[in-house]
Amino acid sequence: MALLSCCLITASLLLTATTAAAENAATETPSEPRHVILIIGDGMDEQQVTIARNYLAGAQGQLLMDSMPIRGASQILTIEDKVDGGPVYVADSANTATSLATGEITSRGRLATSAGADKDLPTIVELAEAAGYRTGLVSTASVTDATPASFAAHINLRYCQNPETIESVLYHDIELGSCAQDMKARGGLGSISEQLADSQVDVILGGGAKHFAPTAEGMAISVRELAQKNGFKVVDSIATLEGSDPTQRLLGLFSDDTMPVRLRGQDGRSAEEPEPSLLNHVHQYLGEVTMPAPMDCEKNPDFEGIPTLKQMTDKALEHLSLHNSRGFFLMIESASIDKQSHERKPCGSIGEVEQLNEALASALAFAETHPNTLVLVTADHSQAAQLIPEISLFAAFPIPTYTPGKVARINTPEGGRMAVNYATTNFMMEEHTGAAVPLYSNAEGHGIIPTFVPQPQLFNIMSDYLGL
Amino acid sequence: MALLSCCLITASLLLTATTAAAENAATETPSEPRHVILIIGDGMDEQQVTIARNYLAGAQGQLLMDSMPIRGASQILTIEDKVDGGPVYVADSANTATSLATGEITSRGRLATSAGADKDLPTIVELAEAAGYRTGLVSTASVTDATPASFAAHINLRYCQNPETIESVLYHDIELGSCAQDMKARGGLGSISEQLADSQVDVILGGGAKHFAPTAEGMAISVRELAQKNGFKVVDSIATLEGSDPTQRLLGLFSDDTMPVRLRGQDGRSAEEPEPSLLNHVHQYLGEVTMPAPMDCEKNPDFEGIPTLKQMTDKALEHLSLHNSRGFFLMIESASIDKQSHERKPCGSIGEVEQLNEALASALAFAETHPNTLVLVTADHSQAAQLIPEISLFAAFPIPTYTPGKVARINTPEGGRMAVNYATTNFMMEEHTGAAVPLYSNAEGHGIIPTFVPQPQLFNIMSDYLGL
Repeated sequence: MALLSCCLITASLLLTATTAAAENAATETPSEPRHVILIIGDGMDEQQVTIARNYLAGAQGQLLMDSMPIRGASQILTIEDKVDGGPVYVADSANTATSLATGEITSRGRLATSAGADKDLPTIVELAEAAGYRTGLVSTASVTDATPASFAAHINLRYCQNPETIESVLYHDIELGSCAQDMKARGGLGSISEQLADSQVDVILGGGAKHFAPTAEGMAISVRELAQKNGFKVVDSIATLEGSDPTQRLLGLFSDDTMPVRLRGQDGRSAEEPEPSLLNHVHQYLGEVTMPAPMDCEKNPDFEGIPTLKQMTDKALEHLSLHNSRGFFLMIESASIDKQSHERKPCGSIGEVEQLNEALASALAFAETHPNTLVLVTADHSQAAQLIPEISLFAAFPIPTYTPGKVARINTPEGGRMAVNYATTNFMMEEHTGAAVPLYSNAEGHGIIPTFVPQPQLFNIMSDYLGL
Repeated sequence: MALLSCCLITASLLLTATTAAAENAATETPSEPRHVILIIGDGMDEQQVTIARNYLAGAQGQLLMDSMPIRGASQILTIEDKVDGGPVYVADSANTATSLATGEITSRGRLATSAGADKDLPTIVELAEAAGYRTGLVSTASVTDATPASFAAHINLRYCQNPETIESVLYHDIELGSCAQDMKARGGLGSISEQLADSQVDVILGGGAKHFAPTAEGMAISVRELAQKNGFKVVDSIATLEGSDPTQRLLGLFSDDTMPVRLRGQDGRSAEEPEPSLLNHVHQYLGEVTMPAPMDCEKNPDFEGIPTLKQMTDKALEHLSLHNSRGFFLMIESASIDKQSHERKPCGSIGEVEQLNEALASALAFAETHPNTLVLVTADHSQAAQLIPEISLFAAFPIPTYTPGKVARINTPEGGRMAVNYATTNFMMEEHTGAAVPLYSNAEGHGIIPTFVPQPQLFNIMSDYLGL
């Protein structure tokens, strides 16, 4: 009974606090500000979520996103790079971010430009800004990477991230393409980092300092200095982030490129290939196969001193909401669920799902005290990791069955062992996959989020919510 | 306007018809019958659904299940085969069907028995029967297969499907296990087919005739004759199914084992291995690789004369609903999404997703005219197929990248091409995977289906709905 009374008192206090906050909000903002917080888990398909849940919360546990009251699936759409191009069944992060940012289906590699015609497509960030909303982009990738950049830049190839790569994107000696037509000298908007530096976005936080170091095209200053000239305060550490003036536009660049991830495999190990014995090479049912040794996940030492996605989210929310009677659009990306999966590093992906859930906690706490806040969580596309049996379904057969591709055997904190395989390609980077992805919403989505949503339609849902 | 009036008249007629039906139902059944229709897509994870959708409806199309108003995910749970066993992260169809049928988490291979202790667990079918409900099990597998059997049989090993295999399950010369303790001579319930023949289920439809041919243990008659003796009318063709007396209990056995599937790869082809050139064997970045030729899906000639899942569903609904004032529990399984995936046959899986959607149409039509009908669609576990890029994300690199495992390149009716890979194992059968699976419900599930549901909890939701 004492416990119950205590609970009731706490609940009553909370209610009072919430009501007071609502009243304050009402006093400050007679026009009822509206907010959209879009959280993207890059490559966060059902396999990635389950692998992370098993590790972080246990097989019978739940992640914070599992508790969200609305859930659906999002249909990922891609076309060939021509006008009215035919269907392509597996997307990349550039065309999917374009779907979310502009409502248009485009081709792989493109940022807010149309397939074939290469027309610039207005983004929700630009439309929101034009309507008086503040905007923010937060990512654990380089801020010039496909997902954040698609919301505020228009270019035909995602790899044109800075003025040095816009004419010709080289990987060692291999030319991957060009965005020459987008050079400022030709009347274009410039490389991605230049477009971000020239943008009206209020808060941009993530990695990618190296893309702001080159000299801005046709100028004597770096892209970073261009951003400062345009009114951005540039920060590069937890301390300068925490100490930043919430009334100033903010560009945070906390690492050279993608931000280091929180978790890694033991001693930095990735998934590895099973090793068949000589006899097994003669016939796959003979001899034996040595599987990679099981491993724990461990803290990534490179993560030391790096702001968490939650810290960036909290700061972005503070900047965007301060004395803001109109509201904001904020995109938050946990980028390396995908990137670590490309590199066959399940522990890295797991840590990034954890970061996403922490950022979601901040978003939901904000929504609790700020009515009219739509919180969406989704992925941009599916990815390579598969949770396969650690002990084969066919273990009764006395032959050495094992997985093609590469596999990591991860000890879970609850005392189990998960096998995660990567087997979409023999290339040094895994491919994406094509499955529809999870979609979650807070209660604000009741009546506006269908259970099955073509990805571009999420743009319309968010735009309508903000009255754009 | 003429069209509109016509529509209004039609709508009004439909409304009248529906009201009349409802009134009839009310007259016949003052106690408001309640129905649960549980549709299981075996192995139908998000990859399988997307692959099937792309083929059947196009990349921008929708399947019937996509239109269902409630959607969530179901968390798949498995433990080791001991009391309080630790977590196992990839399930089989026996333990997942047990979760659905009994609400208990068990170990792989078990049907409605507990892990370690081997205790029989009461199933929703048995509880529903005890409460006066009719019950039905419909599957495109053998009716003795794990999914249907878990609802009405209790045994420690799914392979003990008939009296000839109960003492020792052999595959060629390999002993896969035994259910000797369940023999009738030892006070047990007998093999799976015998338990079905002895069951109170009203309608059992599917494949598996060969498991009813052996002599029932300790008797001079076959299991099929035992079923007849126990009151089942046995049918084995579309004609005898259609002509069956809806007042008699019905056992339909339409094929020897698993029922043939509707679609197959061109000339019966499965996914195949890419073939690297000699130089590529020297180094994976040299030489070239010949990919399997693209193919269409085609009608499977073996499907001729086989009842569809929809035909079986329609007949089951007729039998279960005729003069029934109490209601029923009906489980419908599209089994070969999984089985064809084990065999690396994407066209077969696609045809089975199509069958599931047709059966769903019947279930939803029934629910339209029969209030208090909860229609659930879910999968039991995830499966091996992955939709990978037909043109690599890394196609700009001048090296022969290709997928490990096996791949099928399928021409879609809308003019695209999908690549589906299978790469969980080098064994002759693919493994399952561990991701959470989709869950759909009609509007009757409002307020009772959480967005994230541990699979065993679906048993409680269905039982509560029926007041068991």
